[in-house]
Amino acid sequence: MKRKPRIVILGAGYAGIMTASRLTKAGMHQEAEITLVNKHNYHYQTTWLHEPAAGTLHHDKTRMKIDSVIDTNKVNFIKDAVKEVKREEKKVILENGELEYDYLVVGLGSEPETFGIPGVHEHAFAIRSVNSVRLIREHIEYKFASYNNDDVKHDEYLTFVVAGAGFTGIEFVGELSERVPELCEEYDIDREKVKIISVEAAPTALPGFDEELVEYAMNLLESRGVEFKINTPIKEVTENGVLLADGEEIKSHTVVWTTGVRGNAIVEDSGFEAMRGRVKVEKDLRAPHHDDVFIIGDCALIINEEINRPYPPTAQIAIQQAYTCANNLKHLITGKGEMDEFKPEIKGTVASLGGKEAIGLVGSRKVYGSSASAVKKMIDNRYLFLLGGMPLVLKKGKLNIL
Amino acid sequence: MKRKPRIVILGAGYAGIMTASRLTKAGMHQEAEITLVNKHNYHYQTTWLHEPAAGTLHHDKTRMKIDSVIDTNKVNFIKDAVKEVKREEKKVILENGELEYDYLVVGLGSEPETFGIPGVHEHAFAIRSVNSVRLIREHIEYKFASYNNDDVKHDEYLTFVVAGAGFTGIEFVGELSERVPELCEEYDIDREKVKIISVEAAPTALPGFDEELVEYAMNLLESRGVEFKINTPIKEVTENGVLLADGEEIKSHTVVWTTGVRGNAIVEDSGFEAMRGRVKVEKDLRAPHHDDVFIIGDCALIINEEINRPYPPTAQIAIQQAYTCANNLKHLITGKGEMDEFKPEIKGTVASLGGKEAIGLVGSRKVYGSSASAVKKMIDNRYLFLLGGMPLVLKKGKLNIL
Repeated sequence: MKRKPRIVILGAGYAGIMTASRLTKAGMHQEAEITLVNKHNYHYQTTWLHEPAAGTLHHDKTRMKIDSVIDTNKVNFIKDAVKEVKREEKKVILENGELEYDYLVVGLGSEPETFGIPGVHEHAFAIRSVNSVRLIREHIEYKFASYNNDDVKHDEYLTFVVAGAGFTGIEFVGELSERVPELCEEYDIDREKVKIISVEAAPTALPGFDEELVEYAMNLLESRGVEFKINTPIKEVTENGVLLADGEEIKSHTVVWTTGVRGNAIVEDSGFEAMRGRVKVEKDLRAPHHDDVFIIGDCALIINEEINRPYPPTAQIAIQQAYTCANNLKHLITGKGEMDEFKPEIKGTVASLGGKEAIGLVGSRKVYGSSASAVKKMIDNRYLFLLGGMPLVLKKGKLNIL
Repeated sequence: MKRKPRIVILGAGYAGIMTASRLTKAGMHQEAEITLVNKHNYHYQTTWLHEPAAGTLHHDKTRMKIDSVIDTNKVNFIKDAVKEVKREEKKVILENGELEYDYLVVGLGSEPETFGIPGVHEHAFAIRSVNSVRLIREHIEYKFASYNNDDVKHDEYLTFVVAGAGFTGIEFVGELSERVPELCEEYDIDREKVKIISVEAAPTALPGFDEELVEYAMNLLESRGVEFKINTPIKEVTENGVLLADGEEIKSHTVVWTTGVRGNAIVEDSGFEAMRGRVKVEKDLRAPHHDDVFIIGDCALIINEEINRPYPPTAQIAIQQAYTCANNLKHLITGKGEMDEFKPEIKGTVASLGGKEAIGLVGSRKVYGSSASAVKKMIDNRYLFLLGGMPLVLKKGKLNIL
């Protein structure tokens, strides 16, 4: 009897878990041995993490056990950390073992991009995982709790610097500006004492976004007490705060780094040709010169041919890639159907601003305020529906839509 | 018209606030100008603080606005910190002003007793105020949040040393042992990784308590995973943990110091004759050689003549002293009634052990388990009733008695 081909999926983020989900829905567990490897036994919603980081949503709302959304009778789940892909030997080195594959799906996600600025790894927090955002939430709360215990008041305890006013930075600032009044109440602190400073090197917040929407967002956040320092590169992060390129120092015990991401270093370390951890994949999502390796999600670089620049890595694209990847694996293994070319279909982009506020584009239509916020929540719920149907929407969805 | 005599009460702890309350109930605001000075605009229940410190009760349950329990039309409330009493000039120096008095009531409470052990002030936490216990709660939670974020796991993050197995130490350990499983759940940590270590220099936990009750408490706490190191003096507290007299080091990021209290240093610094901040007061609660100064609560030393040793300072005694003090002020100012001699009436002592567990003596009867826990809650509620009647019991009381 012929051995079934082995599909190994690395990472259970949006790309990886949706690939596993699509494969089982297509009955591919009959045709292949499917293995999913992930560091944790849960999947989490990276795009929601700014909320538990600020403390406005419990982190358990952003995560779900993998065996609650993937049928582990059909997919072999291994909880382990990936260390390296040995491409020539067609195997994967894990922290506690190794795995051979016939087809590999790399969905290992991203790392914070530091642009080589010193001190980021040592002194700044990143919004990147359930562990990291629980730490941010508790760190912020600990600083509030510490403030009134010293006779000399340390203003840097209550100064929160968010480096990067891109999508994640703005969304986090929005949540934090909603959370701060609650923390002030809890710890007997005047709201006036607390500073939230959004620092951006580019000449505008939310670079690339519609100007009118950016202005709406900035006005709203400023009305909640957020200060913006736009056009202001950061030179260094220290244990006392940040040094700006113009020589100013902002004293702060809490610097949250949200200047964008790069692909997982494992991709480069394993010898794939990559730029900042991202592999410019073929149209069928395979790595160049590798017929057996698909690279999807934040590790994949896709060029938007209309403007000849890469698409920013988003959950939307990762999910769409999972559909293409699962289809193409099916074709390769069963010969049925045909290889699809991946083409992102950008349905819209909405940034939440905390509370019932958001801004965005749906198609080419600008949306603001509570209607934008409702659209954002529907986008979030739609993903849950794709992954786990209505039961998952009810369990983990954002149901307070209006 | 003759000027009304001025009564100044320093501190709104059990002793101070009950004195103010008793004076107004006796109509003494007609006869005297009553001023109450306190650092915060709220009164808190010192004997409950081990609960918010562990995170098992919200700190707002332990405190109440002073103007919600004292009629500020009858008592002039000043939110300020006391710096010194100028006895000769009959005035009090505050951080932001000064006050003259005809009669002074000193109820300035206690400070942690360190016995000169190095590092306590620098590296240990104390259960002494709303500010300090919020910090302990958040510090503990921050350590849990930090644990999974490092590749190398730091066991000292999850090791909690409670120095002193007296009343407060045991009560705190009891609450913490109830809280830890919740924190383990919240931060994905095995209960086995967490250590709670109660260190006591004396040859027994709860020195002075009935042996059978002590054994009950220790067995219960050990069943919840608490380790005891009895007969084990601490030599030094460092930033890495504690050094024991026997040479052992316990690595811990959280040392909570509960080895008892001494009187407020302001008492000694103001020239009153005191031992460890406590003044051996006359039978009418006045300071020796001071006809115009009453000292009550933790700054007063009262000898138990049956055993010729001081009574330990407790809320029970502070409250009883407030009654005597208010009565004696009334006599001095109006000439009505007579001076009372203070005699503590120890009705019972119950230590909570977390959850529905407690131990204690009510009269001479030993009580255990849930009935002791119910007695403890009734004692707590009785105080609220004395201070603010049934409305205060309903607002801040422990109503989940059974």
